[in-house]
Amino acid sequence: MPRSSGPVDSPARLSLISRHLAPDYPLNTPYTVERHPDNIDTSLLPKTQTRALTTDTTPANMSTQPEHPTLLIPGPIEFDDAVLNSMSHYSESHVGPGFVAVFGETLSMLRKLFQTTDPSAQPFVLSGSGTLGWDLVAANLIEPGEDALVLSTGYFGDGFADCLKVYGANVTQISAEPGSRPQLPEIEKALSEKKYKLLTVTHVDTSTGVLSELKNLSELVHRVSPDTLVIVDGVCSVACEEIDFDAWKLDGVVTASQKAIGCPAGLSISMFSGRAIQAFQNRQTPPTSYFASMKNWLPIMQNYEAKKPSYFATPSPQLVRALHTALTQIVAQGVKERFAAHKAASDKIKAAVAALGLKQVAANPDDQAHGMTAIYLPETVKGAELLPKLASRGVVFAGGIHKAIAAKYIRFGHMGVSVLDPSRGHVEKAIKALEEGLSECGYQKA
Amino acid sequence: MPRSSGPVDSPARLSLISRHLAPDYPLNTPYTVERHPDNIDTSLLPKTQTRALTTDTTPANMSTQPEHPTLLIPGPIEFDDAVLNSMSHYSESHVGPGFVAVFGETLSMLRKLFQTTDPSAQPFVLSGSGTLGWDLVAANLIEPGEDALVLSTGYFGDGFADCLKVYGANVTQISAEPGSRPQLPEIEKALSEKKYKLLTVTHVDTSTGVLSELKNLSELVHRVSPDTLVIVDGVCSVACEEIDFDAWKLDGVVTASQKAIGCPAGLSISMFSGRAIQAFQNRQTPPTSYFASMKNWLPIMQNYEAKKPSYFATPSPQLVRALHTALTQIVAQGVKERFAAHKAASDKIKAAVAALGLKQVAANPDDQAHGMTAIYLPETVKGAELLPKLASRGVVFAGGIHKAIAAKYIRFGHMGVSVLDPSRGHVEKAIKALEEGLSECGYQKA
Repeated sequence: MPRSSGPVDSPARLSLISRHLAPDYPLNTPYTVERHPDNIDTSLLPKTQTRALTTDTTPANMSTQPEHPTLLIPGPIEFDDAVLNSMSHYSESHVGPGFVAVFGETLSMLRKLFQTTDPSAQPFVLSGSGTLGWDLVAANLIEPGEDALVLSTGYFGDGFADCLKVYGANVTQISAEPGSRPQLPEIEKALSEKKYKLLTVTHVDTSTGVLSELKNLSELVHRVSPDTLVIVDGVCSVACEEIDFDAWKLDGVVTASQKAIGCPAGLSISMFSGRAIQAFQNRQTPPTSYFASMKNWLPIMQNYEAKKPSYFATPSPQLVRALHTALTQIVAQGVKERFAAHKAASDKIKAAVAALGLKQVAANPDDQAHGMTAIYLPETVKGAELLPKLASRGVVFAGGIHKAIAAKYIRFGHMGVSVLDPSRGHVEKAIKALEEGLSECGYQKA
Repeated sequence: MPRSSGPVDSPARLSLISRHLAPDYPLNTPYTVERHPDNIDTSLLPKTQTRALTTDTTPANMSTQPEHPTLLIPGPIEFDDAVLNSMSHYSESHVGPGFVAVFGETLSMLRKLFQTTDPSAQPFVLSGSGTLGWDLVAANLIEPGEDALVLSTGYFGDGFADCLKVYGANVTQISAEPGSRPQLPEIEKALSEKKYKLLTVTHVDTSTGVLSELKNLSELVHRVSPDTLVIVDGVCSVACEEIDFDAWKLDGVVTASQKAIGCPAGLSISMFSGRAIQAFQNRQTPPTSYFASMKNWLPIMQNYEAKKPSYFATPSPQLVRALHTALTQIVAQGVKERFAAHKAASDKIKAAVAALGLKQVAANPDDQAHGMTAIYLPETVKGAELLPKLASRGVVFAGGIHKAIAAKYIRFGHMGVSVLDPSRGHVEKAIKALEEGLSECGYQKA
């Protein structure tokens, strides 16, 4: 029996595909990825099961979901019926032609969501929480001992810094006071003092509802420190805030399925530029994770998008089907229209909050997110008192989590169907519940 | 604006909980996990939505799933209707009392599945592929430069070794010829030559269908090298092969949702002994992953099981609900009965394979898995020819993936409802398709 000790060449991942063969598909050997996808009319393959609980013709206000509290936290959000229905798709092979086609289309649609047409940009969809996106960055795009500049506007900026440190990065952090964001002059000063491998920014920090400005920030980085990768945590921004990946010269955006994209939790979704992939490929040391290794996943993603079956670790066909359904809806609506709809709903909500005499955690209107609102409570009202009153009116808001101000504010998430389908009446219901709940707590506008 | 450079204490994770409050639940401050769960009658909380597509009274042979090819690969497997229905559960907060109760019960039920009553043992359920379990072991239970002994019976044993190396372990591998497994005398010799921090064994290697023997192996390790942790890759064995976690003194079993447990893919599921947790807590160096860090997840899992909301990264409520449904069925049936049913079905399948004049990859009956069968093709038949003939009969098998013999065999997965619900007729359908398909390929039993 052979025994080997010490490093052994890992088996060539790319050749370990075709775990099984599937109906009516040109078959090659189990070791090739070349299945001539161009010759296959995948439009004939079943992409959604027929047990549709809702169809496109179901009136929007006729959700088939059972009565339940309206979830208006900054993720998970309320889901569309068709998306939820995709979650219960019958079992299928993760390397069968039907699923491979769906996964491939999903990756292609992500390019539209991120507004990139650059073929060197690379989308990734992995089973995991949104947090896994931080590991993907930290384990692949920076090497131990290299410098990272982290801009923090709250809990999640701090978390990204923690993750980078775990993987050995030398982190410099610029943290804003709760409700504000680091300003460009300070960032410019930091960039000119040290050569950073990458900079991270939280587009919307879910803990504060602070929106960071990406376009000018990226211009600054490209001007002052052109080799520094611009990495965006877009967990609470992708699909509700404008992100123009190519035009803004972003190098990475990591997000999750359960926020504005409108797919249940369980997927880490990201887009990296050709420059980021190149930085990964130029590493002096191997990636410092296995499950979050681009070395393991890059060829798999490329193969799926080329409609070729491929295997590193088993994806979740049900979650990917749900994401496919969500992205199909997003692309059909148009991303610009989607961003505008979120902004319009946000403007309305923020006006209602102001009309109630309440202040937001993000003080400056330019710094306010469009998919959530972090609202300071009146001094006389406690969250622990108010939130149950909202709940009794069928509305679920979130409490505060920024440690400096946690007990002083609440969070109202307004993403996806809750703002895109006005017939659901979620926003009006929430504003009414907030007004009545505050009143019941004895609050009167000054 | 404060700027910090270099290491910063990570915020106390345990206090970052209670992201929002929820209906009819005793509320404390947003920073406490103490919500007096003992005072709450969680039995009154909704645990399943009312839009049941199937109920317990639906006849077993009346699946409401649309017609589709019967998936008999070694995972993902065919799913029960109620499990699939749980996947489309309406959106709910990941820290709301309904979901927290379900997650807590899910973790408790895992103890029954693994047959452990030791309170120091710790279950984990994370969003991710089964592969993430390897990272969990490699990033937490062994430190860079420490020694690991990997027993390999195929592709997945080799993969575990690769993962351990990525995290800096010094790996010694004992690899068996395809179809056999490392023998105890050789393992004893290796254990007596070097002090290993841990030993890993693939209970069933999905690439070969070889079953490893855990009880005697663990006895050997505890006798010869009592400080060595016994770690099992149970991806293709948990819920179909006997695993007696306490009695066999195992230290870790990592698995995934989509095989014999019968829940769609997307969850990494594991159980670790108190001894393994202690080894993690005694590390000289911090864990070398963030998303796969036990430091981050241990308090979260403990809180969920105590029915206390807690947050590190967002879990997937839909997948956890589906796992809860699957585990409820498993526990109701009884794990011993489940193992026996899989063995009975496997015996029948292996007898049918032999009756067709075919040999298995795992030559020795004692080394043959009970949830899958890896079948050598007749010399005159190619997999690329046979598998489409099975597919045209509505049966999906998998091709080979062990690189030494890949083109020479096929794999038949027989786990979960496909063997537990005889009214589905999956096993008979598969055997008939195999017989007819071989005949159509010109094969006649010698």
